[in-house]
Amino acid sequence: MEITAAQAFGWEFLGTMLLLLLGNGVCALNALRTSGGRNTGWLLIAFGWGMGVFVGASVADVSGGHLNPAVTLMVALRGGVGWDLVPWYFLGQILGAFCGAVLTWAAFKQLFDANNYDEEGNITHANQTTGGIFFTGPAHPKNGWNAVTEFIGTFVLLAWIAFAPANGEISSLKYFAVAFVVVGIGMSLGSPTGYAINPARDFGPRLAYALALPIKDKGSANWGYAWVPIVAPMLAAVFTGVLANALV
Amino acid sequence: MEITAAQAFGWEFLGTMLLLLLGNGVCALNALRTSGGRNTGWLLIAFGWGMGVFVGASVADVSGGHLNPAVTLMVALRGGVGWDLVPWYFLGQILGAFCGAVLTWAAFKQLFDANNYDEEGNITHANQTTGGIFFTGPAHPKNGWNAVTEFIGTFVLLAWIAFAPANGEISSLKYFAVAFVVVGIGMSLGSPTGYAINPARDFGPRLAYALALPIKDKGSANWGYAWVPIVAPMLAAVFTGVLANALV
Amino acid sequence: MEITAAQAFGWEFLGTMLLLLLGNGVCALNALRTSGGRNTGWLLIAFGWGMGVFVGASVADVSGGHLNPAVTLMVALRGGVGWDLVPWYFLGQILGAFCGAVLTWAAFKQLFDANNYDEEGNITHANQTTGGIFFTGPAHPKNGWNAVTEFIGTFVLLAWIAFAPANGEISSLKYFAVAFVVVGIGMSLGSPTGYAINPARDFGPRLAYALALPIKDKGSANWGYAWVPIVAPMLAAVFTGVLANALV
Amino acid sequence: MEITAAQAFGWEFLGTMLLLLLGNGVCALNALRTSGGRNTGWLLIAFGWGMGVFVGASVADVSGGHLNPAVTLMVALRGGVGWDLVPWYFLGQILGAFCGAVLTWAAFKQLFDANNYDEEGNITHANQTTGGIFFTGPAHPKNGWNAVTEFIGTFVLLAWIAFAPANGEISSLKYFAVAFVVVGIGMSLGSPTGYAINPARDFGPRLAYALALPIKDKGSANWGYAWVPIVAPMLAAVFTGVLANALV
Repeated sequence: MEITAAQAFGWEFLGTMLLLLLGNGVCALNALRTSGGRNTGWLLIAFGWGMGVFVGASVADVSGGHLNPAVTLMVALRGGVGWDLVPWYFLGQILGAFCGAVLTWAAFKQLFDANNYDEEGNITHANQTTGGIFFTGPAHPKNGWNAVTEFIGTFVLLAWIAFAPANGEISSLKYFAVAFVVVGIGMSLGSPTGYAINPARDFGPRLAYALALPIKDKGSANWGYAWVPIVAPMLAAVFTGVLANALV
Repeated sequence: MEITAAQAFGWEFLGTMLLLLLGNGVCALNALRTSGGRNTGWLLIAFGWGMGVFVGASVADVSGGHLNPAVTLMVALRGGVGWDLVPWYFLGQILGAFCGAVLTWAAFKQLFDANNYDEEGNITHANQTTGGIFFTGPAHPKNGWNAVTEFIGTFVLLAWIAFAPANGEISSLKYFAVAFVVVGIGMSLGSPTGYAINPARDFGPRLAYALALPIKDKGSANWGYAWVPIVAPMLAAVFTGVLANALV
Repeated sequence: MEITAAQAFGWEFLGTMLLLLLGNGVCALNALRTSGGRNTGWLLIAFGWGMGVFVGASVADVSGGHLNPAVTLMVALRGGVGWDLVPWYFLGQILGAFCGAVLTWAAFKQLFDANNYDEEGNITHANQTTGGIFFTGPAHPKNGWNAVTEFIGTFVLLAWIAFAPANGEISSLKYFAVAFVVVGIGMSLGSPTGYAINPARDFGPRLAYALALPIKDKGSANWGYAWVPIVAPMLAAVFTGVLANALV
Repeated sequence: MEITAAQAFGWEFLGTMLLLLLGNGVCALNALRTSGGRNTGWLLIAFGWGMGVFVGASVADVSGGHLNPAVTLMVALRGGVGWDLVPWYFLGQILGAFCGAVLTWAAFKQLFDANNYDEEGNITHANQTTGGIFFTGPAHPKNGWNAVTEFIGTFVLLAWIAFAPANGEISSLKYFAVAFVVVGIGMSLGSPTGYAINPARDFGPRLAYALALPIKDKGSANWGYAWVPIVAPMLAAVFTGVLANALV
């Protein structure tokens, strides 16, 4: 079942847009001052991102529901997708992530406006940062170790995709399964670096935050950290792809 | 597998009644003063509504388990249900939602009585409002932006129904899947407007609250907001239906 | 696939024992003073009982995984099990529930001992009651309304079993589904009466508490309430059975 | 579908490594001072270990996804795996658990360093112990009763594997199911002893903690308790295996 470049781009765009709309959404719902679900905590984050993966990946079924350049790279290394399509996958994923972040902003527009200001425009909670709603950041500053964490988290996702028999057998079940896997990674490995485990998930919204979102009192886009959730997941993709080609 | 108008009405009535019984129920369980689960929070709300969708939609399998005029409208636009049946779907959904709200009140009758009064009839917690148990309301007053939020939330649901392959393949799995989708929308996009994403879910219980429920110290039914969770989901249905007809 | 009386008794005994072991267990884990999960709250209760239903019902697959006299009564009314087997179902369910409560006590023996006393035997938290770990109780005293709540909750369970297509199709899925249904009932309708929705689940452990469990400072078994979670679920079984025979 | 000793060793190694990476990870995420998910609580623990079982067991599908010497022993007693392979299963499970603990340490390296010390190396929270992240411990000191708890918990797992029909039918579903079972055991029976219910899950990380992990201010490996989560699960395996051979 070959697909066209337009299909690869289009379905990955739509799926990754939904993933980031829901994923950035759960962070907004948990963080913004006037949100009824504020400070619900880590369970909400982990389940919310898992549901976002479920929705986005199952909608993008035609293109395999990758939504993640690290997944696409490993699948390409294993022969599951042609190298000519890979750039279209990447582009759809990054643009989709960008647009998902914009939609999250639109859905929470009034809450972003009220995050640091009351109805009369007076500052209420100064320095409530909003960047963490859109892109990931580490708990500690050593980026070598942060890359280790992102490598390990991405390896869990990719090892499951490469080795678990659920994948590919029943299309409905595989999206439930990958949602469980991502919930598990978030619950178990999420707090040191915010578990990007996906270059598009981090880079697209970071770009949207820096360039497009009309949020008052916007903080830094923290570009100094941006390489970690790009490089480490891609290295994990190469590692897992080579390992899987050797083992299976 | 054609169905009759009576089947469309009856199964949608039963399913939507169960959806609202459980959905309004989880809000009552979370809100009422003497409830053992009071203030459990957003995870309870999101999971509870998702389970309500699971129960109601799977019981209404004969009529497709819509439970939502926006779903029926999109399905009709895509040719999945005849236009002659659509009014019976709508009627079953709205009356079912109305009766589900009444059943929630009955199940929590003593807790509603005790919400603002102690055993001797003295006021304990004045101004504990109960309307939010039955119908949705926004965190902020600009209804144009609230409609944007409801449009986006409904689009996620309808895009998943239109595009995900799980739908229609295995009847058992599709109700698990749609429950996950609704849990995800609630976790990620729920707090700005209370995520009606369904005109019947909001209008039926609002009507029941205004006309039927014998609750002491009842607050306003807030009819000024009632158009938002009707108009925005129906616009999302038209948008997604046209988009799906063009794409798939 | 006819089964013998011994099979009906044995599998229902084993399944209901596991249900009560896990269900009473989650209440013990949430309530006892020295439990690391103390006061986790309503989400733990609702999910824990749901998982208990999943484990118990799937283990009792040979006998249909009823674990509940109300389910057995409705299934018998609909012709799904012979009336000669019904007493063996009931007996297995009640004795299984009794033994499950005893196993919960054994698993938490040291925590029951330490609930009101420290290591030297001094009273620490006087009046920590333990009956609520084993049997249900209402938030408010009017048992007519409490019976309404139990009737409505049981109706949701039985309506799902009678009408949802998931049941019977794929044996693995139906136990996931019924677990979701019970999680939903607990989240949405659980707090007014503790959602027995099952005469054996309440009567067996209440009997064990009154007669068998060697707990210090044991409270009342509250027999005055015991009829509610027996009579209301059985009435719901008759109502739903008759309704389903008329409709389907 | 016979497998080789190398396959038994290798897949059990990989699966148990992933189980412990995620399982020890969720304990680290919940416990360490600078973790964003600190003190999320028992729901996180129970769901996180369940997801770890899902990931590890489905990846180890070729060898049956045991990940647990008690499971292997019962399966061998029932004839499901040859006795010549059993030592390779055990070895893979123990070494996998050891390596999973090491990977958890690596993923949380900076958070372990900061657990008791601030950025300048001054002590901040003295006596924050870290052993409980890796191996289990009881709430109360009587190890006879602790063994009873571990026996009961392991029996629930093994009874489900032996008797539930989901097992073996559909490979994708059985890993969802066993994840639910482990979530249920954790929610219901977890707090008295930390629910090892698996000798490798406890012994491997305890060994890693004692011998390999470069954590500052490391506490005791508490070898005096180490026999409980080894002996009690293995006795439960013999009991359940003999029972299942007699019944089924």
